[in-house]
Amino acid sequence: MEHLRNDIKAFIQERDWEQFHSPKNLSMALSVEVSEIVEHFQWLTIEESRNLPPQKLAEVREEIGDVMIYLTELAGKLGIDPVEAAKAKVEINKKKYPASLVKGRATKYTEY
Amino acid sequence: MEHLRNDIKAFIQERDWEQFHSPKNLSMALSVEVSEIVEHFQWLTIEESRNLPPQKLAEVREEIGDVMIYLTELAGKLGIDPVEAAKAKVEINKKKYPASLVKGRATKYTEY
Amino acid sequence: MEHLRNDIKAFIQERDWEQFHSPKNLSMALSVEVSEIVEHFQWLTIEESRNLPPQKLAEVREEIGDVMIYLTELAGKLGIDPVEAAKAKVEINKKKYPASLVKGRATKYTEY
Amino acid sequence: MEHLRNDIKAFIQERDWEQFHSPKNLSMALSVEVSEIVEHFQWLTIEESRNLPPQKLAEVREEIGDVMIYLTELAGKLGIDPVEAAKAKVEINKKKYPASLVKGRATKYTEY
Repeated sequence: MEHLRNDIKAFIQERDWEQFHSPKNLSMALSVEVSEIVEHFQWLTIEESRNLPPQKLAEVREEIGDVMIYLTELAGKLGIDPVEAAKAKVEINKKKYPASLVKGRATKYTEY
Repeated sequence: MEHLRNDIKAFIQERDWEQFHSPKNLSMALSVEVSEIVEHFQWLTIEESRNLPPQKLAEVREEIGDVMIYLTELAGKLGIDPVEAAKAKVEINKKKYPASLVKGRATKYTEY
Repeated sequence: MEHLRNDIKAFIQERDWEQFHSPKNLSMALSVEVSEIVEHFQWLTIEESRNLPPQKLAEVREEIGDVMIYLTELAGKLGIDPVEAAKAKVEINKKKYPASLVKGRATKYTEY
Repeated sequence: MEHLRNDIKAFIQERDWEQFHSPKNLSMALSVEVSEIVEHFQWLTIEESRNLPPQKLAEVREEIGDVMIYLTELAGKLGIDPVEAAKAKVEINKKKYPASLVKGRATKYTEY
Protein backbone atom coordinates (compact mmCIF):
# COMPACT_ATOMS: atom_id res chain seq x y z
CA MET A 1 0.00 0.00 0.00
CA GLU A 2 2.77 2.46 0.94
CA HIS A 3 4.49 1.72 -2.39
CA LEU A 4 1.21 2.18 -4.28
CA ARG A 5 0.48 5.49 -2.55
CA ASN A 6 3.90 6.80 -3.56
CA ASP A 7 3.49 5.62 -7.16
CA ILE A 8 0.14 7.41 -7.44
CA LYS A 9 1.44 10.60 -5.85
CA ALA A 10 4.39 10.76 -8.27
CA PHE A 11 2.10 10.06 -11.24
CA ILE A 12 -0.24 12.92 -10.28
CA GLN A 13 2.52 15.42 -9.51
CA GLU A 14 4.39 14.79 -12.78
CA ARG A 15 1.17 15.64 -14.65
CA ASP A 16 0.27 18.63 -12.45
CA TRP A 17 -3.16 17.07 -11.86
CA GLU A 18 -3.26 17.85 -8.12
CA GLN A 19 -5.47 20.88 -8.87
CA PHE A 20 -8.25 18.66 -10.30
CA HIS A 21 -8.09 15.93 -7.66
CA SER A 22 -10.30 17.31 -4.89
CA PRO A 23 -12.20 14.71 -2.83
CA LYS A 24 -15.41 15.74 -4.62
CA ASN A 25 -13.94 15.17 -8.08
CA LEU A 26 -12.21 11.95 -6.99
CA SER A 27 -15.54 10.56 -5.75
CA MET A 28 -16.93 11.16 -9.25
CA ALA A 29 -13.92 9.55 -10.95
CA LEU A 30 -14.22 6.57 -8.59
CA SER A 31 -17.86 6.07 -9.58
CA VAL A 32 -17.00 6.33 -13.28
CA GLU A 33 -14.32 3.65 -12.97
CA VAL A 34 -16.61 1.32 -11.01
CA SER A 35 -19.14 1.62 -13.83
CA GLU A 36 -16.50 0.36 -16.23
CA ILE A 37 -16.42 -2.83 -14.16
CA VAL A 38 -20.24 -2.97 -14.13
CA GLU A 39 -20.24 -2.53 -17.91
CA HIS A 40 -18.35 -5.82 -18.31
CA PHE A 41 -20.97 -7.69 -16.26
CA GLN A 42 -24.21 -5.99 -17.31
CA TRP A 43 -25.41 -8.49 -19.94
CA LEU A 44 -23.83 -11.64 -18.45
CA THR A 45 -25.74 -14.32 -16.59
CA ILE A 46 -24.71 -14.97 -12.99
CA GLU A 47 -22.94 -18.12 -14.22
CA GLU A 48 -21.07 -16.34 -17.03
CA SER A 49 -19.86 -13.75 -14.53
CA ARG A 50 -18.17 -16.60 -12.62
CA ASN A 51 -16.34 -17.79 -15.74
CA LEU A 52 -14.89 -14.84 -17.60
CA PRO A 53 -12.88 -15.57 -20.74
CA PRO A 54 -9.18 -14.57 -20.36
CA GLN A 55 -9.43 -11.43 -22.51
CA LYS A 56 -12.37 -10.06 -20.54
CA LEU A 57 -10.70 -11.01 -17.24
CA ALA A 58 -7.63 -9.00 -18.26
CA GLU A 59 -9.83 -5.99 -19.00
CA VAL A 60 -11.66 -6.29 -15.68
CA ARG A 61 -8.28 -6.48 -13.93
CA GLU A 62 -7.34 -3.11 -15.43
CA GLU A 63 -10.64 -1.58 -14.28
CA ILE A 64 -10.14 -3.00 -10.77
CA GLY A 65 -6.71 -1.36 -10.85
CA ASP A 66 -8.27 2.00 -11.75
CA VAL A 67 -10.84 1.71 -8.96
CA MET A 68 -8.11 0.85 -6.45
CA ILE A 69 -6.02 3.82 -7.64
CA TYR A 70 -8.84 6.34 -7.14
CA LEU A 71 -9.95 4.75 -3.87
CA THR A 72 -6.39 4.96 -2.52
CA GLU A 73 -6.01 8.55 -3.66
CA LEU A 74 -9.40 9.68 -2.30
CA ALA A 75 -8.81 7.93 1.01
CA GLY A 76 -5.28 9.37 1.22
CA LYS A 77 -6.55 12.93 0.78
CA LEU A 78 -8.89 12.34 3.73
CA GLY A 79 -6.14 10.78 5.88
CA ILE A 80 -7.74 7.33 5.62
CA ASP A 81 -6.10 3.97 4.90
CA PRO A 82 -8.63 1.95 2.85
CA VAL A 83 -7.43 -1.43 4.19
CA GLU A 84 -7.73 -0.25 7.81
CA ALA A 85 -11.14 1.31 7.05
CA ALA A 86 -12.28 -2.02 5.58
CA LYS A 87 -11.11 -4.01 8.62
CA ALA A 88 -12.93 -1.61 10.94
CA LYS A 89 -16.06 -1.83 8.77
CA VAL A 90 -16.08 -5.65 8.86
CA GLU A 91 -16.28 -5.37 12.67
CA ILE A 92 -19.18 -2.90 12.42
CA ASN A 93 -20.96 -5.12 9.89
CA LYS A 94 -20.65 -8.12 12.22
CA LYS A 95 -22.81 -6.29 14.75
CA LYS A 96 -25.14 -4.79 12.13
CA TYR A 97 -25.88 -8.15 10.49
CA PRO A 98 -25.83 -10.81 13.23
CA ALA A 99 -25.30 -14.24 11.63
CA SER A 100 -28.19 -15.66 13.63
CA LEU A 101 -30.64 -13.20 12.06
CA VAL A 102 -29.47 -12.86 8.46
CA LYS A 103 -28.13 -16.34 7.67
CA GLY A 104 -28.90 -17.27 4.07
CA ARG A 105 -30.99 -14.14 3.48
CA ALA A 106 -29.97 -11.51 0.96
CA THR A 107 -31.99 -8.76 2.61
CA LYS A 108 -31.36 -6.99 5.86
CA TYR A 109 -33.25 -8.78 8.63
CA THR A 110 -35.26 -5.60 9.21
CA GLU A 111 -36.54 -5.57 5.62
CA TYR A 112 -40.05 -6.89 4.93
CA MET B 1 -4.57 -7.44 2.70
CA GLU B 2 -4.25 -11.15 3.53
CA HIS B 3 -5.78 -10.48 6.95
CA LEU B 4 -8.62 -8.46 5.38
CA ARG B 5 -9.35 -11.17 2.81
CA ASN B 6 -9.67 -13.75 5.59
CA ASP B 7 -11.91 -11.48 7.69
CA ILE B 8 -14.26 -10.95 4.74
CA LYS B 9 -14.33 -14.65 3.83
CA ALA B 10 -15.26 -15.63 7.41
CA PHE B 11 -17.93 -12.91 7.56
CA ILE B 12 -19.56 -14.15 4.33
CA GLN B 13 -19.40 -17.84 5.24
CA GLU B 14 -20.90 -17.35 8.71
CA ARG B 15 -23.91 -15.69 7.04
CA ASP B 16 -24.17 -18.20 4.18
CA TRP B 17 -24.04 -15.30 1.71
CA GLU B 18 -21.64 -17.00 -0.71
CA GLN B 19 -24.63 -17.94 -2.91
CA PHE B 20 -25.47 -14.25 -3.56
CA HIS B 21 -21.89 -13.04 -4.08
CA SER B 22 -21.30 -13.76 -7.77
CA PRO B 23 -18.97 -11.34 -9.57
CA LYS B 24 -22.00 -9.83 -11.33
CA ASN B 25 -23.82 -9.12 -8.06
CA LEU B 26 -20.64 -7.89 -6.38
CA SER B 27 -20.06 -5.38 -9.19
CA MET B 28 -23.55 -4.00 -8.45
CA ALA B 29 -22.93 -3.87 -4.69
CA LEU B 30 -19.61 -2.11 -5.33
CA SER B 31 -21.34 0.57 -7.39
CA VAL B 32 -24.02 1.04 -4.71
CA GLU B 33 -21.39 1.57 -2.01
CA VAL B 34 -19.41 4.02 -4.15
CA SER B 35 -22.61 6.05 -4.58
CA GLU B 36 -22.84 6.33 -0.81
CA ILE B 37 -19.48 8.11 -0.94
CA VAL B 38 -20.69 10.32 -3.82
CA GLU B 39 -23.82 11.15 -1.83
CA HIS B 40 -21.68 12.79 0.87
CA PHE B 41 -20.00 15.03 -1.70
CA GLN B 42 -22.83 15.82 -4.11
CA TRP B 43 -23.88 19.24 -2.78
CA LEU B 44 -20.49 20.37 -1.42
CA THR B 45 -18.27 22.91 -3.10
CA ILE B 46 -14.81 21.74 -4.14
CA GLU B 47 -13.42 23.61 -1.12
CA GLU B 48 -15.89 22.08 1.34
CA SER B 49 -14.98 18.62 0.05
CA ARG B 50 -11.38 19.32 1.14
CA ASN B 51 -12.48 20.22 4.68
CA LEU B 52 -15.02 17.71 5.90
CA PRO B 53 -16.33 18.14 9.45
CA PRO B 54 -15.30 15.23 11.75
CA GLN B 55 -18.75 13.58 11.80
CA LYS B 56 -19.00 13.52 8.00
CA LEU B 57 -15.39 12.32 7.71
CA ALA B 58 -16.21 9.39 10.01
CA GLU B 59 -19.18 8.48 7.81
CA VAL B 60 -17.11 8.69 4.62
CA ARG B 61 -14.50 6.45 6.27
CA GLU B 62 -17.17 3.78 6.79
CA GLU B 63 -18.26 4.03 3.15
CA ILE B 64 -14.64 3.78 1.98
CA GLY B 65 -14.41 0.65 4.13
CA ASP B 66 -17.47 -0.83 2.42
CA VAL B 67 -16.07 -0.07 -1.04
CA MET B 68 -12.74 -1.66 -0.11
CA ILE B 69 -14.56 -4.75 1.24
CA TYR B 70 -16.53 -5.33 -1.97
CA LEU B 71 -13.54 -4.49 -4.18
CA THR B 72 -11.40 -7.01 -2.30
CA GLU B 73 -14.11 -9.66 -2.48
CA LEU B 74 -14.86 -9.12 -6.18
CA ALA B 75 -11.15 -9.11 -7.06
CA GLY B 76 -10.58 -12.20 -4.93
CA LYS B 77 -13.30 -14.14 -6.75
CA LEU B 78 -11.52 -13.34 -10.03
CA GLY B 79 -8.08 -14.29 -8.66
CA ILE B 80 -6.95 -10.66 -8.67
CA ASP B 81 -5.09 -8.71 -5.97
CA PRO B 82 -6.41 -5.12 -6.11
CA VAL B 83 -3.14 -3.57 -4.89
CA GLU B 84 -1.11 -5.44 -7.54
CA ALA B 85 -3.71 -4.57 -10.20
CA ALA B 86 -3.42 -0.89 -9.20
CA LYS B 87 0.39 -0.92 -9.40
CA ALA B 88 0.23 -2.52 -12.86
CA LYS B 89 -2.38 0.05 -13.96
CA VAL B 90 -0.24 3.00 -12.83
CA GLU B 91 2.46 1.71 -15.22
CA ILE B 92 -0.08 1.44 -18.07
CA ASN B 93 -1.39 4.94 -17.31
CA LYS B 94 2.13 6.38 -17.44
CA LYS B 95 2.31 5.35 -21.10
CA LYS B 96 -1.31 6.27 -21.87
CA TYR B 97 -0.97 9.78 -20.46
CA PRO B 98 2.60 10.99 -21.13
CA ALA B 99 3.42 13.87 -18.76
CA SER B 100 4.74 15.96 -21.65
CA LEU B 101 1.34 15.85 -23.41
CA VAL B 102 -1.19 16.04 -20.57
CA LYS B 103 0.57 18.26 -18.02
CA GLY B 104 -1.95 20.53 -16.29
CA ARG B 105 -4.82 19.42 -18.54
CA ALA B 106 -7.82 17.59 -17.15
CA THR B 107 -8.77 16.05 -20.47
CA LYS B 108 -7.02 13.32 -22.40
CA TYR B 109 -4.59 14.91 -24.84
CA THR B 110 -6.56 13.36 -27.68
CA GLU B 111 -9.75 15.13 -26.66
CA TYR B 112 -10.75 18.34 -28.50
CA MET C 1 -43.22 16.77 -19.47
CA GLU C 2 -43.98 20.52 -19.45
CA HIS C 3 -46.08 20.04 -16.32
CA LEU C 4 -43.30 18.01 -14.66
CA ARG C 5 -40.67 20.64 -15.50
CA ASN C 6 -42.80 23.34 -13.88
CA ASP C 7 -43.45 21.22 -10.78
CA ILE C 8 -39.71 20.62 -10.32
CA LYS C 9 -38.82 24.27 -10.88
CA ALA C 10 -41.34 25.43 -8.26
CA PHE C 11 -40.13 22.79 -5.80
CA ILE C 12 -36.50 23.93 -6.16
CA GLN C 13 -37.27 27.66 -5.99
CA GLU C 14 -39.43 27.34 -2.87
CA ARG C 15 -36.48 25.69 -1.12
CA ASP C 16 -33.85 28.07 -2.52
CA TRP C 17 -31.89 25.06 -3.80
CA GLU C 18 -31.06 26.60 -7.19
CA GLN C 19 -27.60 27.51 -5.83
CA PHE C 20 -26.69 23.82 -5.28
CA HIS C 21 -28.15 22.50 -8.55
CA SER C 22 -25.33 23.06 -11.02
CA PRO C 23 -25.08 20.50 -13.85
CA LYS C 24 -22.02 18.99 -12.13
CA ASN C 25 -23.86 18.48 -8.83
CA LEU C 26 -26.99 17.24 -10.61
CA SER C 27 -24.96 14.59 -12.45
CA MET C 28 -23.79 13.34 -9.05
CA ALA C 29 -27.31 13.35 -7.60
CA LEU C 30 -28.56 11.49 -10.68
CA SER C 31 -25.94 8.76 -10.18
CA VAL C 32 -26.83 8.46 -6.48
CA GLU C 33 -30.53 8.00 -7.27
CA VAL C 34 -29.81 5.41 -9.97
CA SER C 35 -27.81 3.43 -7.40
CA GLU C 36 -30.89 3.33 -5.21
CA ILE C 37 -32.59 1.45 -8.05
CA VAL C 38 -29.56 -0.84 -8.45
CA GLU C 39 -29.62 -1.51 -4.70
CA HIS C 40 -33.09 -3.09 -5.03
CA PHE C 41 -31.84 -5.48 -7.72
CA GLN C 42 -28.30 -6.29 -6.54
CA TRP C 43 -28.96 -9.61 -4.81
CA LEU C 44 -31.93 -10.77 -6.93
CA THR C 45 -31.73 -13.44 -9.60
CA ILE C 46 -32.64 -12.40 -13.14
CA GLU C 47 -35.99 -14.16 -12.65
CA GLU C 48 -36.74 -12.48 -9.33
CA SER C 49 -36.04 -9.10 -10.93
CA ARG C 50 -38.88 -9.84 -13.38
CA ASN C 51 -41.34 -10.56 -10.54
CA LEU C 52 -40.98 -7.94 -7.83
CA PRO C 53 -43.33 -8.19 -4.85
CA PRO C 54 -45.75 -5.20 -4.63
CA GLN C 55 -43.94 -3.48 -1.74
CA LYS C 56 -40.58 -3.58 -3.53
CA LEU C 57 -42.20 -2.48 -6.80
CA ALA C 58 -43.66 0.57 -5.02
CA GLU C 59 -40.20 1.44 -3.68
CA VAL C 60 -38.58 1.05 -7.11
CA ARG C 61 -41.31 3.30 -8.56
CA GLU C 62 -40.28 6.05 -6.13
CA GLU C 63 -36.62 5.67 -7.11
CA ILE C 64 -37.53 5.79 -10.82
CA GLY C 65 -39.41 9.00 -9.99
CA ASP C 66 -36.31 10.49 -8.36
CA VAL C 67 -34.12 9.54 -11.35
CA MET C 68 -36.62 11.11 -13.76
CA ILE C 69 -36.74 14.27 -11.62
CA TYR C 70 -32.97 14.75 -11.67
CA LEU C 71 -32.68 13.76 -15.33
CA THR C 72 -35.35 16.33 -16.28
CA GLU C 73 -33.71 19.01 -14.19
CA LEU C 74 -30.18 18.33 -15.47
CA ALA C 75 -31.40 18.21 -19.07
CA GLY C 76 -33.44 21.39 -18.58
CA LYS C 77 -30.40 23.31 -17.30
CA LEU C 78 -28.57 22.32 -20.50
CA GLY C 79 -31.52 23.24 -22.74
CA ILE C 80 -32.19 19.58 -23.56
CA ASP C 81 -35.52 17.72 -23.63
CA PRO C 82 -34.78 14.16 -22.43
CA VAL C 83 -37.57 12.58 -24.51
CA GLU C 84 -36.35 14.28 -27.70
CA ALA C 85 -32.74 13.36 -26.86
CA ALA C 86 -33.83 9.73 -26.43
CA LYS C 87 -35.66 9.65 -29.77
CA ALA C 88 -32.60 11.10 -31.52
CA LYS C 89 -30.35 8.56 -29.76
CA VAL C 90 -32.50 5.61 -30.88
CA GLU C 91 -31.86 6.74 -34.47
CA ILE C 92 -28.10 6.94 -33.82
CA ASN C 93 -28.14 3.52 -32.15
CA LYS C 94 -29.89 1.99 -35.16
CA LYS C 95 -26.85 2.86 -37.29
CA LYS C 96 -24.33 1.99 -34.56
CA TYR C 97 -25.79 -1.47 -33.97
CA PRO C 98 -27.12 -2.79 -37.30
CA ALA C 99 -29.64 -5.57 -36.62
CA SER C 100 -27.93 -7.81 -39.18
CA LEU C 101 -24.64 -7.71 -37.23
CA VAL C 102 -25.73 -7.74 -33.58
CA LYS C 103 -28.88 -9.88 -33.64
CA GLY C 104 -29.09 -12.01 -30.49
CA ARG C 105 -25.64 -10.94 -29.28
CA ALA C 106 -25.19 -8.98 -26.07
CA THR C 107 -21.83 -7.55 -27.08
CA LYS C 108 -21.05 -4.96 -29.68
CA TYR C 109 -20.30 -6.69 -32.98
CA THR C 110 -16.79 -5.20 -32.88
CA GLU C 111 -16.03 -6.86 -29.53
CA TYR C 112 -14.03 -10.11 -29.54
CA MET D 1 -43.49 9.15 -24.45
CA GLU D 2 -45.79 6.67 -26.21
CA HIS D 3 -43.84 7.22 -29.45
CA LEU D 4 -40.51 6.76 -27.64
CA ARG D 5 -41.67 3.54 -25.97
CA ASN D 6 -42.65 2.10 -29.36
CA ASP D 7 -39.35 3.13 -30.95
CA ILE D 8 -37.39 1.43 -28.18
CA LYS D 9 -39.50 -1.73 -28.31
CA ALA D 10 -38.99 -2.07 -32.08
CA PHE D 11 -35.25 -1.43 -31.72
CA ILE D 12 -34.91 -4.19 -29.11
CA GLN D 13 -37.07 -6.72 -30.95
CA GLU D 14 -35.26 -6.28 -34.28
CA ARG D 15 -32.01 -7.14 -32.50
CA ASP D 16 -33.45 -10.01 -30.45
CA TRP D 17 -32.13 -8.34 -27.28
CA GLU D 18 -35.28 -8.93 -25.22
CA GLN D 19 -33.54 -11.95 -23.61
CA PHE D 20 -30.81 -9.75 -22.08
CA HIS D 21 -33.07 -6.92 -20.93
CA SER D 22 -34.29 -8.12 -17.54
CA PRO D 23 -34.97 -5.38 -14.96
CA LYS D 24 -31.78 -6.42 -13.13
CA ASN D 25 -29.62 -6.03 -16.24
CA LEU D 26 -31.37 -2.81 -17.25
CA SER D 27 -30.64 -1.29 -13.83
CA MET D 28 -26.95 -2.01 -14.47
CA ALA D 29 -27.06 -0.54 -17.98
CA LEU D 30 -28.82 2.54 -16.62
CA SER D 31 -26.05 3.08 -14.06
CA VAL D 32 -23.37 2.64 -16.74
CA GLU D 33 -24.99 5.28 -18.97
CA VAL D 34 -25.38 7.74 -16.08
CA SER D 35 -21.67 7.38 -15.40
CA GLU D 36 -20.98 8.47 -18.96
CA ILE D 37 -22.72 11.74 -18.06
CA VAL D 38 -20.72 11.99 -14.82
CA GLU D 39 -17.51 11.38 -16.79
CA HIS D 40 -18.09 14.60 -18.74
CA PHE D 41 -18.42 16.61 -15.52
CA GLN D 42 -15.86 14.95 -13.24
CA TRP D 43 -12.95 17.36 -13.69
CA LEU D 44 -14.95 20.53 -14.39
CA THR D 45 -15.46 23.33 -11.91
CA ILE D 46 -19.06 24.12 -10.92
CA GLU D 47 -18.86 27.17 -13.20
CA GLU D 48 -17.50 25.24 -16.18
CA SER D 49 -20.33 22.72 -15.79
CA ARG D 50 -22.77 25.61 -16.35
CA ASN D 51 -21.05 26.63 -19.60
CA LEU D 52 -20.30 23.55 -21.68
CA PRO D 53 -18.68 24.11 -25.08
CA PRO D 54 -20.99 23.04 -27.98
CA GLN D 55 -19.11 19.81 -28.77
CA LYS D 56 -19.26 18.61 -25.16
CA LEU D 57 -22.92 19.65 -24.89
CA ALA D 58 -23.73 17.52 -27.95
CA GLU D 59 -21.99 14.54 -26.34
CA VAL D 60 -23.84 15.03 -23.04
CA ARG D 61 -27.12 15.23 -25.00
CA GLU D 62 -26.42 11.77 -26.46
CA GLU D 63 -25.69 10.36 -22.99
CA ILE D 64 -28.90 11.91 -21.62
CA GLY D 65 -30.68 10.21 -24.51
CA ASP D 66 -29.17 6.84 -23.52
CA VAL D 67 -30.18 7.31 -19.88
CA MET D 68 -33.73 8.21 -20.91
CA ILE D 69 -33.89 5.15 -23.20
CA TYR D 70 -32.88 2.72 -20.43
CA LEU D 71 -35.04 4.47 -17.82
CA THR D 72 -38.08 4.24 -20.12
CA GLU D 73 -37.38 0.59 -20.89
CA LEU D 74 -36.79 -0.40 -17.26
CA ALA D 75 -39.87 1.48 -16.10
CA GLY D 76 -41.94 -0.03 -18.93
CA LYS D 77 -40.98 -3.58 -17.93
CA LEU D 78 -42.24 -2.82 -14.42
CA GLY D 79 -45.47 -1.23 -15.69
CA ILE D 80 -44.33 2.23 -14.60
CA ASP D 81 -44.52 5.52 -16.52
CA PRO D 82 -41.39 7.52 -15.53
CA VAL D 83 -43.08 10.92 -16.00
CA GLU D 84 -46.03 9.91 -13.79
CA ALA D 85 -43.63 8.40 -11.23
CA ALA D 86 -41.70 11.69 -11.17
CA LYS D 87 -44.82 13.78 -10.65
CA ALA D 88 -45.92 11.52 -7.78
CA LYS D 89 -42.40 11.74 -6.27
CA VAL D 90 -42.38 15.54 -6.36
CA GLU D 91 -45.51 15.43 -4.19
CA ILE D 92 -43.83 13.02 -1.75
CA ASN D 93 -40.70 15.20 -1.67
CA LYS D 94 -42.77 18.28 -0.83
CA LYS D 95 -43.82 16.59 2.41
CA LYS D 96 -40.41 15.04 3.08
CA TYR D 97 -38.55 18.34 2.70
CA PRO D 98 -40.84 21.14 3.98
CA ALA D 99 -39.68 24.47 2.54
CA SER D 100 -39.83 26.07 5.98
CA LEU D 101 -37.27 23.60 7.36
CA VAL D 102 -34.82 23.06 4.48
CA LYS D 103 -34.79 26.47 2.76
CA GLY D 104 -31.29 27.24 1.47
CA ARG D 105 -29.77 24.15 3.09
CA ALA D 106 -28.22 21.39 1.02
CA THR D 107 -28.62 18.78 3.72
CA LYS D 108 -31.75 17.13 4.98
CA TYR D 109 -33.07 19.08 7.96
CA THR D 110 -32.57 15.98 10.12
CA GLU D 111 -28.86 15.84 9.33
CA TYR D 112 -26.38 17.25 11.87
